[in-house]
Amino acid sequence: MRILLVGASGTLGRAVAAELGQRHEVIAASRHAGSVNIDLTDVQSIHRGLKQAGELDAVISAAGKVAFAPLADFKAAPYGESLHTLGIADKLLGQVNLALAARDHLRDGGSITLTTGILSQQPIVAGSSASLVNGAVEAFVRAAAVELPRGLRINVVSPTVLTEAMPSYAPFFRGFEPVSAARAAMAFSRSVEGAQTGQIYTVF
Amino acid sequence: MRILLVGASGTLGRAVAAELGQRHEVIAASRHAGSVNIDLTDVQSIHRGLKQAGELDAVISAAGKVAFAPLADFKAAPYGESLHTLGIADKLLGQVNLALAARDHLRDGGSITLTTGILSQQPIVAGSSASLVNGAVEAFVRAAAVELPRGLRINVVSPTVLTEAMPSYAPFFRGFEPVSAARAAMAFSRSVEGAQTGQIYTVF
Ligand SMILES: NC(=O)c1ccc[n+]([C@@H]2O[C@H](COP(=O)([O-])OP(=O)(O)OC[C@H]3O[C@@H](n4cnc5c(N)ncnc54)[C@H](OP(=O)(O)O)[C@@H]3O)[C@@H](O)[C@H]2O)c1
Ligand SMILES: NC(=O)c1ccc[n+]([C@@H]2O[C@H](COP(=O)([O-])OP(=O)(O)OC[C@H]3O[C@@H](n4cnc5c(N)ncnc54)[C@H](OP(=O)(O)O)[C@@H]3O)[C@@H](O)[C@H]2O)c1
Repeated sequence: MRILLVGASGTLGRAVAAELGQRHEVIAASRHAGSVNIDLTDVQSIHRGLKQAGELDAVISAAGKVAFAPLADFKAAPYGESLHTLGIADKLLGQVNLALAARDHLRDGGSITLTTGILSQQPIVAGSSASLVNGAVEAFVRAAAVELPRGLRINVVSPTVLTEAMPSYAPFFRGFEPVSAARAAMAFSRSVEGAQTGQIYTVF
Repeated sequence: MRILLVGASGTLGRAVAAELGQRHEVIAASRHAGSVNIDLTDVQSIHRGLKQAGELDAVISAAGKVAFAPLADFKAAPYGESLHTLGIADKLLGQVNLALAARDHLRDGGSITLTTGILSQQPIVAGSSASLVNGAVEAFVRAAAVELPRGLRINVVSPTVLTEAMPSYAPFFRGFEPVSAARAAMAFSRSVEGAQTGQIYTVF
């Protein structure tokens, strides 16, 4: 398969590239690294990047930024501000836009795999932006799955905190059992190389 | 209790007003009806409306519009457009803004209750905007609950399709067992008059 992997240079993305790269052609993309330039927050760059990548059997996002901040920091605000403070612009709309653009680009029967995280289900202090965004992406994927044309599939991988990220995330995730990025990467293999759609593959 | 009910004139809101009005002072709000004027899509009107309502023990939203449209109609788009086409501006950010503003306004121990719907869990054709928005609101509420100050609580009521709405919604919800608005209203009573927080009260 030819697989476009957005976020291939990240903690999670490197493990996904290692897992799928054993059996498939993985085309790495992100803002600053890889062979294709894609900024999820810029819809034109998504279209350009997909075009540049050529024929594809799978599109994966292992990217998406949210705002870790106390709820007290979030204020009712005009939408232009909320979009950014709440992480909606990046991990939510960035991934939804990637999925919508990939739909018009993938080969028949191709797959889309997005990334969320445990916070959609299990909240932490300072995690309300992440929870909102992850919950939105998961519900969108469940719904989009029943309407995608041409046998296209769409799934989400939702890992708990990664072992490799504990040096910076540990204070937010006390008591959470981390998983290795390599283990989380297996769920991407299951999504891409399996046959299900509308699934949330939790890795926790 | 003094309860501000946004959307009091709607199908669901009228039933919530009838249920809670038996035991409490319900202050009706919306864009065009009720004693307080609130447009959830306008953050200034939320602040003004809360101020005008005075001391409050509970704030409820039984409002929020989404876009019922085939997935094929949703295209990757700049955020200014996606905000509206995906219903993010209204039911998602409108309710989140109401919750964030109510937090700074409610009496100690007060409650916030938002509305989602079955589509966060169970998708239908043409429901991907509703699913996304409902999923976001539910995950946000679960997370906000662990950080609200002063004993404030926050919950969601998620009804299936309402019997009263079947004349217009039936074609979208074939095979779904509708519930009466009066039955859905009981979940609002449970949220407001109970003591739990971070709950998704499903009525289906
Ligand atoms: N780390 C964890 O413990 C953990 C746990 C659960 C879920 N997750 C989720 O997994 C995803 C990846 O996390 P990570 O820890 O691997 O992040 P990371 O190490 O910071 O890597 C992020 C990757 O995404 C790319 N990227 C960042 N912004 C982008 C944009 N706007 N457009 C396109 N690419 C972009 C980065 O490359 P460029 O800088 O070149 O763009 C990089 O390749 C995120 O959605 C995160 O929420 C992470
Ligand atoms: N009907 C169903 O079967 C069903 C099932 C599950 C969930 N829900 C959810 O329940 C909520 C209410 O649905 P409904 O069927 O009762 O709707 P509805 O009959 O159309 O009533 C909507 C109510 O909200 C108010 N409203 C609309 N836009 C508003 C805004 N921007 N700011 C403030 N108030 C606004 C309306 O009054 P004004 O026009 O005066 O503003 C009205 O009081 C929605 O979130 C809906 O998704 C409905």
